[in-house]
Amino acid sequence: MGQVDQTTNRQSGAQLRSKAREVEGHVITFPADEPLELDCGTPLGPFSLAYQTYGELNKDASNAILICHALTGDQHVANIHPVTDKPGWWEIMVGPGKPIDTDRFFVICANHVGGCMGSTGPMSENPETGKPYGLDFPVITISDMVRAEARLLDHLGVDQLFSVVGGSMGGMQVLEWAASYKERVFSAIPIATGARHSSQNIAFHEVGRQAVMADPEWCGGRYIDEGKMPRKGLAVARMAAHITYLSDDALHRKFGRNLQDREKISFGFDADFQVESYLRHQGYTFVDRFDPNSYLYMTRAMDYFDLAADHDGELSKAFEGTPTRFCCVSFTSDWLFPTEETRTVVQALNAVAANVSFVEIETDKGHDAFLLDEPELADAVSGFLSAAARKRGLKLNAELEDAELGS
Amino acid sequence: MGQVDQTTNRQSGAQLRSKAREVEGHVITFPADEPLELDCGTPLGPFSLAYQTYGELNKDASNAILICHALTGDQHVANIHPVTDKPGWWEIMVGPGKPIDTDRFFVICANHVGGCMGSTGPMSENPETGKPYGLDFPVITISDMVRAEARLLDHLGVDQLFSVVGGSMGGMQVLEWAASYKERVFSAIPIATGARHSSQNIAFHEVGRQAVMADPEWCGGRYIDEGKMPRKGLAVARMAAHITYLSDDALHRKFGRNLQDREKISFGFDADFQVESYLRHQGYTFVDRFDPNSYLYMTRAMDYFDLAADHDGELSKAFEGTPTRFCCVSFTSDWLFPTEETRTVVQALNAVAANVSFVEIETDKGHDAFLLDEPELADAVSGFLSAAARKRGLKLNAELEDAELGS
Repeated sequence: MGQVDQTTNRQSGAQLRSKAREVEGHVITFPADEPLELDCGTPLGPFSLAYQTYGELNKDASNAILICHALTGDQHVANIHPVTDKPGWWEIMVGPGKPIDTDRFFVICANHVGGCMGSTGPMSENPETGKPYGLDFPVITISDMVRAEARLLDHLGVDQLFSVVGGSMGGMQVLEWAASYKERVFSAIPIATGARHSSQNIAFHEVGRQAVMADPEWCGGRYIDEGKMPRKGLAVARMAAHITYLSDDALHRKFGRNLQDREKISFGFDADFQVESYLRHQGYTFVDRFDPNSYLYMTRAMDYFDLAADHDGELSKAFEGTPTRFCCVSFTSDWLFPTEETRTVVQALNAVAANVSFVEIETDKGHDAFLLDEPELADAVSGFLSAAARKRGLKLNAELEDAELGS
Repeated sequence: MGQVDQTTNRQSGAQLRSKAREVEGHVITFPADEPLELDCGTPLGPFSLAYQTYGELNKDASNAILICHALTGDQHVANIHPVTDKPGWWEIMVGPGKPIDTDRFFVICANHVGGCMGSTGPMSENPETGKPYGLDFPVITISDMVRAEARLLDHLGVDQLFSVVGGSMGGMQVLEWAASYKERVFSAIPIATGARHSSQNIAFHEVGRQAVMADPEWCGGRYIDEGKMPRKGLAVARMAAHITYLSDDALHRKFGRNLQDREKISFGFDADFQVESYLRHQGYTFVDRFDPNSYLYMTRAMDYFDLAADHDGELSKAFEGTPTRFCCVSFTSDWLFPTEETRTVVQALNAVAANVSFVEIETDKGHDAFLLDEPELADAVSGFLSAAARKRGLKLNAELEDAELGS
């Protein structure tokens, strides 16, 4: 098919290459004559997807699970992150014997198009100029990301996903997968997400973008060429966003009005309160691993997502005739994607008589609950996958071999 | 007492003088030898308070109502604002025949210490250097603001307030007034407020401050000296804060995902959505009327407010023996100061057998509801004030004269 698969990490853009250490990983590059046709009308080519896999694809290629990462996530789901040296972002959920069991399933996760962890994005070299794309990178959509992932699955020989799983922006992709590639999705687990981005969520994203673009070191998006980096702007964006990932109760439980390393307030603008210190830390560690322009593109993709609008304003039409089994999950204290958003999806699925279960998990951890140790989430995912595997008649290679021998 | 009352507007600081037009207004200046003793331990002197009054003080000085403004409000409650040319921020509530009826009450509102509309703040001249204070201005507290207002009341000859009223940060001052000057407060109406600033609220304020301080034009607070202005940083801070003043439902009702002056999304970073355009407007009009350093100081004052902590950790102790009649108001969709915060205040008041009524108003307008046309709020305030006036035996001057003639 013309793609070049590279088993060592060959991230695009000199800048990223200097940021990310050489690690085991995969990058597939689709050549310029096989571009990704984007919703905005521009073809993107060549383009690369950096991805990780865990476990083994079984012989009938029926055990693949695609994990779609969130806004600032990446493909490093269950391995040490090459930039931060921290554990993968979903090790709690993915691995041998974990709810998404890599002894049983072949797990794939790709950095999204527009991202900054090896897939083609605004930091990559624009073949027309030889310089980083910056704002010349075309605006991408959730649907573009999914179309790119479908190309990756073609390459990997996965015709139908056993499941597609993701939270937040990843959950948007799960819904888009189920809507756009009905026959390729046996089951789907959209978590803490919605079928559109709300007005308030767009507003928060706009604040983040304005913070980045207000930083003079952003240089109209050409900070790499200029040898600059809008660190402060991106840190402010991250701080604002981070509050929305938590909940009032969780912040109160974790920090309350506790002071940071002091007995009394300082009557100044230092980080007197623990919550201030925590937020500053969140902001400034983020800028070490994320590209500011990529942040603009990823937030924009979420803002533009509106699955109903893409189907004559009727969300149920997106799922008409779906053969997919759904497990929709929300969290009581998530105010970024409140349960109401998930309920809207469930109602649309019910309207087309889809096979759907709906789990609302009681927690004070807010939106970020999907990334945290939340036993009910683990149980819901593992229970749903087991039931789906039985329904699918999923077999491990050893079982398939036994069956072959017996035939 | 040494104060100099000036009936024309004499705002401190060359910068503000050039911003604000000459208008009718009052400024009282307390001389250096009568400083304001601040909680941080620094005496502030000389210091000025710019204030407005409406209506007429009756002969026994029993009809005064003090209105405490919110974070970015000012003394221009019910007159055209000298900088923005817009109506006063509470004209819906204050004026002849309005719920706070200026035919009946003598209404006072002062710009808080630390503010930027004529009262002494970080933009004022530091007498030690002859330059604007900037970050050399001492950090002030809600309690400092109230102490300054008490000095103003002394000057005006108001021994006891008939009522003190305010929303949000103004409501914090109302509570502080009732706690610190029990005998001077006949009735109190704290609206959409709390007895402390929550962890999440501190977090949002910290984002705003970081946005201001990240702007290189902030110049460590010395932007006036440097001929700069951190407009972008302050605009971002305002945008983030503004979201917290509204509600998800209100944003959805007002804007939804409607596009701004276009049929289709632009696949770019323009303000495609109305909510983006609205937020940008809110951000950039704010910087024309507000001083960035003052924003830092005002937010810090709110963060530091914790009335229970000031009373051995027991909120009810703040109100022990209170003779004040309270009307506490909250709004169902206010997520900055949820009803729970008001309920905590009401419970503390109940614990000391205070005279308290509690009104939770059903609205989707969020925190800002206290500034908007909310008939239930108008009814609650006007009903409470009428009942309190009867209880107080409040008389207009004409009635007092009749009584004198009759005696």
